[in-house]
Amino acid sequence: MQQIKEITLQKYTNQQFNDFSDSLAVEEPLEIRLNFGSLQNRQKMSLAVTMRTPGNDENLVAGFLLTEGIIQGKVDLLSVKKILTKHADSKDNIILAELSPTADFDPAILERHFYTTSSCGICGKTSIEAVQTNSCFDLPISTFDIPPATLLDLPKKLEKHQSVFTKTGGLHAAALFNKNGELLLVREDIGRHNAVDKLIGAAMQKYPFPLSDYLILVSGRAGFELIQKSLMAGIPYLAAVGAPSSLAVNLARESGMNLVGFLRNGSFNVYHSV
Amino acid sequence: MQQIKEITLQKYTNQQFNDFSDSLAVEEPLEIRLNFGSLQNRQKMSLAVTMRTPGNDENLVAGFLLTEGIIQGKVDLLSVKKILTKHADSKDNIILAELSPTADFDPAILERHFYTTSSCGICGKTSIEAVQTNSCFDLPISTFDIPPATLLDLPKKLEKHQSVFTKTGGLHAAALFNKNGELLLVREDIGRHNAVDKLIGAAMQKYPFPLSDYLILVSGRAGFELIQKSLMAGIPYLAAVGAPSSLAVNLARESGMNLVGFLRNGSFNVYHSV
Repeated sequence: MQQIKEITLQKYTNQQFNDFSDSLAVEEPLEIRLNFGSLQNRQKMSLAVTMRTPGNDENLVAGFLLTEGIIQGKVDLLSVKKILTKHADSKDNIILAELSPTADFDPAILERHFYTTSSCGICGKTSIEAVQTNSCFDLPISTFDIPPATLLDLPKKLEKHQSVFTKTGGLHAAALFNKNGELLLVREDIGRHNAVDKLIGAAMQKYPFPLSDYLILVSGRAGFELIQKSLMAGIPYLAAVGAPSSLAVNLARESGMNLVGFLRNGSFNVYHSV
Repeated sequence: MQQIKEITLQKYTNQQFNDFSDSLAVEEPLEIRLNFGSLQNRQKMSLAVTMRTPGNDENLVAGFLLTEGIIQGKVDLLSVKKILTKHADSKDNIILAELSPTADFDPAILERHFYTTSSCGICGKTSIEAVQTNSCFDLPISTFDIPPATLLDLPKKLEKHQSVFTKTGGLHAAALFNKNGELLLVREDIGRHNAVDKLIGAAMQKYPFPLSDYLILVSGRAGFELIQKSLMAGIPYLAAVGAPSSLAVNLARESGMNLVGFLRNGSFNVYHSV
């Protein structure tokens, strides 16, 4: 499971070219296949292909299934495992998820793609309504406070664990913290949405859902999709090192999620607090 | 067409909270609808919904259609225009693209999603082959050189034109330069792939394809998808301010594209040169 690839290249610096050896973040397609349906009428389909950084692929698939509304929780998922094909290069790039026969999954919901990106397309407001309809959990009406000094320390704690980013400068990270600012889980990926899916998939194995007592920190900007995915896991607090989008702020405000942005260099912005 | 939204928030800095007013990058869904088929058998479909920053939406749709292999060039596209619905908030968020009756488009290619993300899913190698099969243009065997000093200046030229980013810290940009390092076009979006689609869609209106004499600069990292989209327009030179991924480098090398990364602070890395 290679996450870093060494490469030789020409580096131009101080007005001259030199041979240079560097590390790249690995990007490879992952195909997600699904077995679903009752025992009498078991069906299979190829659900999606996503470009991702190899590693924690089972987390990625479990998280993706949850945050896209395909499963409602761990109970709907029998197993997630790599499958081998005759194609020599395919190992590690195909994952089969077995849904429980009792899982309530209707493939028709996929017809207009996944709702994170489809969400009816009329306007931001209907996108927010779509999230709220699909979400399994309501956020608590009042949630925990985190002292500013604790909040300001979170990015440093994340950086210490961003192993691949440090080497390649090429990855997004997402981390789960408890109320005391202790780092519990970190996941990295070349796609910011994949990093969050990996994190939520990993958390699903370790903690009871909804994740009402936890904070998620993302290393970059916070768009609509990251808020939506966090809501699907019931996380009431999202902090981003970068900027949020307008629709991300709207969704956080309408859903009752704490949203902090530009968390860096001793300051942060509170876009919504509950 | 609002690209920036003013917002009030609480800013924490120097150990205290203060009211603060800031600008956010706007994110809204855009639905792309398609009319296609012969005059005798005209059909319509909802093609995709993408989260994007409003502005240059016609460019975005034209570029998306080209880089996803749905049209082969400007000749396949009769018109791209906004359509209104009864829904008050929907204005500006639905675009109808009319394909020419002679355009060779088969909706069956969409069944496994778009090939940038589907690309068969077996491995990076087959993803690269899928791009090469779908590409309308081969890159020239030898291409233009750009002196290092000219290359090092490009990000500064782009920054001067990144109007929304400067205000919000929240947008990706893509720019088209000629061989002399003159900036010709800039497009911004909250999605890096959208910024490139907007740029290529705008270029399609102004310049003959393939864009063999131009360089594309992207403000962030360069993944597989950005290389693929640039190849679909026949652009032989891509420079990124950030890091490329492993698969991006493979695709550039196998397709004969010049690829430069980490173009900042007086230095850059050459991952492939033709």
